Amino acid sequence: MTNMEKLRSRLQEIARIGSLLNIALWDQEVNMPPKAADSRALALAEASGLLHQKFVSIDSDGLLSGLKAELDAGALSGGDAVVVRETWRSFEREKKLPERLVKEIALTASQAYEVWAEARKKDDFDMFLPWLRKMVKLKREEAEYVGYADSPYDALLDAYEPGMTSKEVTKVLSDLKGFLVPFIRKIKASKSKVDDRRLKGKFPIEAQESFNRLVAKEIGFDFAAGRLDKATHPFATGINPSDVRLTTRYLVEDVFYSIGSTVHEAGHGLYEQGLPGEHFGTPLAESVSLGIHESQSRMWENMIGKSEPFWRHFYPKLRKAFPKPFREIPLKDFCRMISKARPSLIRTESDEVTYNLHIILRYEIEKGMIEGTIDPADTPRIWKEKMKEYLGVDVPNDREGVLQDVHWAHGGIGYFPTYSLGNLYAAQFYRAMKKDVKGIERKMSQGDFMPVLTWLRKNIHSLGKTYRAGELVERVTGKPLDSRYFIEYLEEKYGRIYGL
Amino acid sequence: MTNMEKLRSRLQEIARIGSLLNIALWDQEVNMPPKAADSRALALAEASGLLHQKFVSIDSDGLLSGLKAELDAGALSGGDAVVVRETWRSFEREKKLPERLVKEIALTASQAYEVWAEARKKDDFDMFLPWLRKMVKLKREEAEYVGYADSPYDALLDAYEPGMTSKEVTKVLSDLKGFLVPFIRKIKASKSKVDDRRLKGKFPIEAQESFNRLVAKEIGFDFAAGRLDKATHPFATGINPSDVRLTTRYLVEDVFYSIGSTVHEAGHGLYEQGLPGEHFGTPLAESVSLGIHESQSRMWENMIGKSEPFWRHFYPKLRKAFPKPFREIPLKDFCRMISKARPSLIRTESDEVTYNLHIILRYEIEKGMIEGTIDPADTPRIWKEKMKEYLGVDVPNDREGVLQDVHWAHGGIGYFPTYSLGNLYAAQFYRAMKKDVKGIERKMSQGDFMPVLTWLRKNIHSLGKTYRAGELVERVTGKPLDSRYFIEYLEEKYGRIYGL
Repeated sequence: MTNMEKLRSRLQEIARIGSLLNIALWDQEVNMPPKAADSRALALAEASGLLHQKFVSIDSDGLLSGLKAELDAGALSGGDAVVVRETWRSFEREKKLPERLVKEIALTASQAYEVWAEARKKDDFDMFLPWLRKMVKLKREEAEYVGYADSPYDALLDAYEPGMTSKEVTKVLSDLKGFLVPFIRKIKASKSKVDDRRLKGKFPIEAQESFNRLVAKEIGFDFAAGRLDKATHPFATGINPSDVRLTTRYLVEDVFYSIGSTVHEAGHGLYEQGLPGEHFGTPLAESVSLGIHESQSRMWENMIGKSEPFWRHFYPKLRKAFPKPFREIPLKDFCRMISKARPSLIRTESDEVTYNLHIILRYEIEKGMIEGTIDPADTPRIWKEKMKEYLGVDVPNDREGVLQDVHWAHGGIGYFPTYSLGNLYAAQFYRAMKKDVKGIERKMSQGDFMPVLTWLRKNIHSLGKTYRAGELVERVTGKPLDSRYFIEYLEEKYGRIYGL
Repeated sequence: MTNMEKLRSRLQEIARIGSLLNIALWDQEVNMPPKAADSRALALAEASGLLHQKFVSIDSDGLLSGLKAELDAGALSGGDAVVVRETWRSFEREKKLPERLVKEIALTASQAYEVWAEARKKDDFDMFLPWLRKMVKLKREEAEYVGYADSPYDALLDAYEPGMTSKEVTKVLSDLKGFLVPFIRKIKASKSKVDDRRLKGKFPIEAQESFNRLVAKEIGFDFAAGRLDKATHPFATGINPSDVRLTTRYLVEDVFYSIGSTVHEAGHGLYEQGLPGEHFGTPLAESVSLGIHESQSRMWENMIGKSEPFWRHFYPKLRKAFPKPFREIPLKDFCRMISKARPSLIRTESDEVTYNLHIILRYEIEKGMIEGTIDPADTPRIWKEKMKEYLGVDVPNDREGVLQDVHWAHGGIGYFPTYSLGNLYAAQFYRAMKKDVKGIERKMSQGDFMPVLTWLRKNIHSLGKTYRAGELVERVTGKPLDSRYFIEYLEEKYGRIYGL
């Protein structure tokens, strides 16, 4: 075996054990009986520690350092260079973290999750506060171990969006905020109103399930290599490219509630199914970053899944499955309704325009907590103030305020900005794709989604971590990341809907 | 930490990782998308190797050897003595096995399973033969590494029924065969016939699911610490005492097909839920043996689940759920019908009387393969001959013959006899229970199954591996294992049904 083969084989071993961890994480949300919560938390923590230990011992005989020296000397190229570069990057981060801290974060995450779920139900922030404090403390500790130039937040962000700094994030999000706040006021003031009350009805869950399955299948999700289940908080898990699992959620009165989240998660799932399985375990079969991942889900959910071409194909099927109310609603009205912009309390239910202000608010608060300028105890108040300032919304309680998202309980601090980056990447990619592939919207309106998927597979999915996010965006679109493409997209679409 | 605390903590770590493996095994049967079969097989093999490695390195600093010396010097007692004695036993076995072999068996098992499933579907034994050969070769290799006094088969049997030898098994099974073959002829010749055709009907699967869930719940299965799902081959998995999963299978035309297997698996599940969770990871929270495990499932399935007291409680509910055909069938007739004895092709569908001959046949064949007196290529022929000799049944094809069971594909050679041992233990335990707890059948007929569960919890479940199977049977019943109690049980019950 060459040294490269040895490295790949060690990485695969770790990834195989890791895939069992991912199954258990999926199971925790989809199947686990309630009394198993504590033992599962301990098992997941144990496995996280073990994986960490296995990963940092990958260089115990100098295998990785040796390959890194070859890389630096220019002796590696192609896939080999990518594997060594990216493995080294993760290794450098991981080896700085003591196993004790890795296990403690994993265990705290599981426990804090249980408390958060209860606290949210009871609208009791004080119940959650000690766990938020503990998690912030642990993540600050993580940041100190990892190290950073500017802000400890950078050390956390880097785990989700490699190479990105909070300075860059602040820049693009400020540009976006500068556009969004007045844009939303304009929409509010517009005489053109969208009334979506007629979308509501009574949609049996089983019929919704069939329809969701149909949509996921037709846009290219392979059910022989994946599943679609129910979960309280929809998510997608790639156990490996031949086992990708989506979840969605259902409301009897609102069929679009499940469709939107299915198309979103299918976007993630198509990325996971499109990673090259033969490189499983190595960075060549890993997604670029959470931001790029989110670009896939948001493109399918919003740019495609709320577009007229998409619904020109699916609307007859929806009408057939649910004649009431859709037989009475013309296609164009339906498309306007599902795109309605309206400031609201809950991020996951918000529209494409207001969504990013929810993210900006969370970004500012979590960055403050990590930098030590915001005390966790003050987050409910700051949340309410910012919701009022950015969206004009009064937050009546913490359940629909600071307690609404699981991320902080789960230790996902540094994660939120990747959602907005995803929107920006998505708009920039979508624009490039429409330019590259002539007649792509006409194809979609005929039910042919293959041109979209083929383009994504070729330009993004099949490349794994070959390029960093910034590099990938430039290669694919010819321009560095810029919020103006997303802004143009919103101006065009919402200008049309609201006659601005 | 004391050395005992250190040992417990190491065992717990291993068990937590092991619990993820168990989730993945359960998932493989219940949820896994088909294309994931290969990657799952590799992941399970990797994890098996890792667990083996972790377990044998438990003594790398002499911790276990030191405690074993203390045990031998009489310095340990109670639970500590059990933990060290049983851990040492497993350790002695495992350390003899090279990790390479452990992984190869795990990987071959997953691959052979896929081939077997296909071969069975196609009734193509030749397709499966090379995999059977390979598995037999690997298991013989395992036996050589483990070592044995009499027969290499003993080394395999010992993994499932610790301390039991094939000499003892051959003795009790011969006694049983000596009774069963003429007994079945008598039943066949009896003028008293049981016609169970009226049990068939059309039972919607969803209604069956509700009924099965109800039965499992009422006999004591805790759904807050467990689940019931569908699988092609029913099984029960104890991930830990707070996460125990049953599966069953459904036939639209036969509601008892699912009930029988649910009650059987619930018997296993009640044992797993009754193990003391505070000792999870140590032998104190492990079942005694597969035979004792099977005694729980068979007691619930047959001695209880096909008895009149049981159905006096559940029959009105069954009639309510499925008025047709049960409103027309009196309780006593129903109980006779579900206990009908009839030689048949398929083990898992066979009745309590003929069942053990299916096992004896498999035991003789697999023992012959391991001892080298039977060539795997000859198994279809030998199978057919023995089926004719023992049960008077003509086997029309291999699908319903030698290919019907998964065990050999999965590497479970040495496993089959534990099914019959389970029947023998069950009869002996059940007799003791009825003597210990007055009026227990009356309680059951009133829907109160707690006295049964309480007795099982106290005498068996809560003890974990405190006693070996033989010792446990003697302590609980006052007598060593003897097939006569099972024989008496059959004589009484079937004498009554068939007027012998």
